[in-house]
Amino acid sequence: MYYKDYSREQRDAALSQLWKDLDRFKAQGLALNMARGVPSPDQLSLSLGILNVLYAEADCRAEDGTDCRNYGVMDGIPECKRLLADMLRVKPDMVMIGGNSSLNMMFDTIACFMNHPVTPGCPAWALVPDRKFLCPVPGYDRHFGITEYFGFEMIPVPMDENGPKMDVVEELVKDPSVKGMWCVPKYSNPTGVTYSDEVVRRIAALQPAAPDFRVMWDDAYCIHDLTDEPDQLLNIFEECEKTGNLDLPIAFCSTSKITFPGSGVAAMAACENNMKVIKAKYKYQTIGYDKLNMLRHVRFFGDLDGMKAHMKKHAEVLRPRFEIVLKKLSEQLDEYGIVRYNHPRGGYFVSVNVVDGTAKRVVELCKESGVILTDAGATYPYGKDPYDSNIRIAPSFPSLEDLSTAMDVFCLCARIAALEKLNEA
Amino acid sequence: MYYKDYSREQRDAALSQLWKDLDRFKAQGLALNMARGVPSPDQLSLSLGILNVLYAEADCRAEDGTDCRNYGVMDGIPECKRLLADMLRVKPDMVMIGGNSSLNMMFDTIACFMNHPVTPGCPAWALVPDRKFLCPVPGYDRHFGITEYFGFEMIPVPMDENGPKMDVVEELVKDPSVKGMWCVPKYSNPTGVTYSDEVVRRIAALQPAAPDFRVMWDDAYCIHDLTDEPDQLLNIFEECEKTGNLDLPIAFCSTSKITFPGSGVAAMAACENNMKVIKAKYKYQTIGYDKLNMLRHVRFFGDLDGMKAHMKKHAEVLRPRFEIVLKKLSEQLDEYGIVRYNHPRGGYFVSVNVVDGTAKRVVELCKESGVILTDAGATYPYGKDPYDSNIRIAPSFPSLEDLSTAMDVFCLCARIAALEKLNEA
Repeated sequence: MYYKDYSREQRDAALSQLWKDLDRFKAQGLALNMARGVPSPDQLSLSLGILNVLYAEADCRAEDGTDCRNYGVMDGIPECKRLLADMLRVKPDMVMIGGNSSLNMMFDTIACFMNHPVTPGCPAWALVPDRKFLCPVPGYDRHFGITEYFGFEMIPVPMDENGPKMDVVEELVKDPSVKGMWCVPKYSNPTGVTYSDEVVRRIAALQPAAPDFRVMWDDAYCIHDLTDEPDQLLNIFEECEKTGNLDLPIAFCSTSKITFPGSGVAAMAACENNMKVIKAKYKYQTIGYDKLNMLRHVRFFGDLDGMKAHMKKHAEVLRPRFEIVLKKLSEQLDEYGIVRYNHPRGGYFVSVNVVDGTAKRVVELCKESGVILTDAGATYPYGKDPYDSNIRIAPSFPSLEDLSTAMDVFCLCARIAALEKLNEA
Repeated sequence: MYYKDYSREQRDAALSQLWKDLDRFKAQGLALNMARGVPSPDQLSLSLGILNVLYAEADCRAEDGTDCRNYGVMDGIPECKRLLADMLRVKPDMVMIGGNSSLNMMFDTIACFMNHPVTPGCPAWALVPDRKFLCPVPGYDRHFGITEYFGFEMIPVPMDENGPKMDVVEELVKDPSVKGMWCVPKYSNPTGVTYSDEVVRRIAALQPAAPDFRVMWDDAYCIHDLTDEPDQLLNIFEECEKTGNLDLPIAFCSTSKITFPGSGVAAMAACENNMKVIKAKYKYQTIGYDKLNMLRHVRFFGDLDGMKAHMKKHAEVLRPRFEIVLKKLSEQLDEYGIVRYNHPRGGYFVSVNVVDGTAKRVVELCKESGVILTDAGATYPYGKDPYDSNIRIAPSFPSLEDLSTAMDVFCLCARIAALEKLNEA
C-alpha cells in the first residue's frame, strides 16, 4: 500500500518501527560513501599493467619518432590523437590531447572564451555582464561550478527520458546573452539518460541568437556501458555537419574511468574555427602535455577495440553494484509509492527522486547513520533543487557488502522522510 | 685586431674568406638546432629508472594512505608537496602541485587574476584596459607570450649583471596599472644572471601603487647548477616576510629539466592570501593532478638531497657543452671585438650580444647554413630587440660534435654580419 493511503495511525506505527530499524544500523558505527562516481579498487586493479608498459628509451618513441620524454608536440602524439578521436567518433585532426582531466579542459575552454572571443566580432564573455548558460537538470555539479565561477547566470532546463526538453532550449537560445549549454549526452550524470536521436538533431539544428553560443558536449561515458545492449548516441558532429552548424559543439572525453582517474588522458574535439581559437590559447598555456602518459595508454590498449574490451571488465565489476541498488530500491521502496528512479544502461549513477521536499532530509538522515551521499541539491545549479527531491547515488566505490548495507540505510531513511512529510501535511 | 680598426680592404678580404669558409659548411647540408633549452637524450636517460618505480597496488599509496590511482587531493600528495617545497625553500603548506608544466601554472595564474581579483577590492585585470607588466630584458619569450596573450602592455626593464635595474623598476611601479613583473631570479633565461642580494631585497621592499601587483618568481633553475660553486639566491619569501610584503611573490618550479620535460611535476608557492584566490580557482578547474607521477618523483629521488645528486649528473653532461660554446666564442670572436657574452654557472643558455643591428642577420645566416638558433628578438617583448643584438644560444641538445660544428658556423656568421655592418657605415 502506498504511504499516501496510510492512516495517521499506520504512519506513526510504521515510523516507530523504522526508527528502531535505523537505530540498529546507527549502532554499527558505519562509514560508507556513495557520494562520488569513483571507481573501486577492483576496477583500478584492471589497469595496473599500464604502469609497466614503458621501460627503455626505445619504448618512449612515438610512431613518428618523437622522444616522448622531451618537450614539444602541443596537441598530442598522433597515435593518442587517433585513439581518443575514435572514442569521440571524430577525425584525429579535430582532436587536442590535454592533461589528466577533461574537466580541466572544459574549465580552460570557458576561461579562454571569457577573454578571447570564440567568434570573431563577438565580445569576450567577460564583457557580457548578463551572460547566461543553459544547465539541463538534474546535471553534473562540477559543470555548474565552472559556469558559476565565471559569473554566468545558470538557467535550468528540465531533462526527460530523451534528454533536455528541446522546446525549452529552443526558446531560451533566442536570448543573445545565452552563451552555451552543458550536455552529458550519453548516460547523463546523474539520470543515466542518453539523448534521443530527435534531441541530438534538434541540438544540431539550433539557431541561437548568440553567434558565439557553444554546446559543451561532455562525452564522459561514451564507452562506459554496463550491458551488452548499450545505448546508441547520434554523432553530434555528423548531425551538425548536415545542418551547417559545425561551430556549435565542443566535445570532451577522458580515460579517467577507463584507466586511472588521477592519471588518465583527456581530450577535446572541435571544428577548425573553434580549434583555432582554442589552440591559439594552448600555444601560450603549455609546451605540451604528458606524452609518456599518452604513449602508456596507446601501448596498453592498442586501439579502440582494446579499450572496449577493457570496458567490459569494468562493466563486470560495476554491474552487480548497480543491480544491488536497483534491487534494494525495488524491494524496499516500490510498494510505498515514494520514489522514482532510472535503470541506467551505463555511466556511474542511479538518480533517485524521493518525495518532494525530503531529499535534504534523506541525505541528512543517511549521514547521521554513517552513509554519505552526494549533497541534496548538488545536481542543480547553485545547489538548489526546487523540488528538494533528487538524490544521486554513486554505487561504484563501496564493496558489494557495504553497498548492500548502505542501500538498506538509504531505503529506511527515504521511508522515514516520506512519512514525516505526510505527517506534516 | 678589432674589426672596427680594419681598413675597407682588410674587411673585404676577410669577408671573402669567411664566405668561402661558410660555403664549405653549407655544402655539408647541416641540420643542427640550438634554439630551445631542451635536454639531450643523454640527460633524459639519467631518469629512465623513474618509469619503473611503480608496479603494484601497494606502490600507488601515498604516505597518508591515499590511493594515487584514484580521484582527489587537489593540491598534491604530502610527500610531493614536501619535496617541491624544499626545492622552492618554502613550507609545504604554501605549495600547490600542478600538472607537468610550471609554464601552465603561470598562465593559469595570470588567467585567474584576469577575471578574479587577487586583492579584494581591486578590479579584475580584464577590467583594467591599460594594464601593464614589467619584463626584464633579455628574458624568456614564453613569459612575454603569456602577458601579450592577455593584453598587457609589456614594459622592458634592462638587466645588468645583478638582475633587473631596480631604479627603473621602483619608478615604474608607481603606475597603478602596472600589475606585475616577470623574474627568473637564478641563472636567468637567457643571461644566466642570478639576482644579487640587493636586487632581491629591493624587490621585497617594493611599494607598488597597485595593491594587486605581483612578482612572478619563476625559479626554473633553482637547483640547475653547472659547477660546484653555485650562485646563491636570497630567499624571496624570507625577505618579503621581513618587509611585510608577503603578498608580493608567487614562485614556480618544476622537474621538467630534472626528470622528463614532457612528464615532470610542476609546483607553485605563495602566501595564504594569494593561495586562497588561486585555490578557489583550482577547486573548479580540477579534481586533482596526476598523483601517480607525483609519487614516481618522490620514489625516484627520496628527498631534495637525492634530487641534487641527480642534478650533478645533469651538470656532467651539460658542462662540456657550455665549455665548447664559450671556448669557440673566445677563440674565434674575442679578437675581433664584436661580441659580449656571459659565463653562466647554471641554467640552460649562453646569451650573446653581437654587433648592434646584426642579430637578425646572424640568425638568418646560420639558418641558411643549417644551424637553427632562437629567433633574434625572441628574448624581448613582442619579439623586438631595440638593438637587434641579443642571441640566445641553447647548447644542451646537440651532441658535442654537432655543437662544435654549429658554433663554428655561428662564429663565421657573427663575423660576416659584423663586417657587412661595418661596410654599411
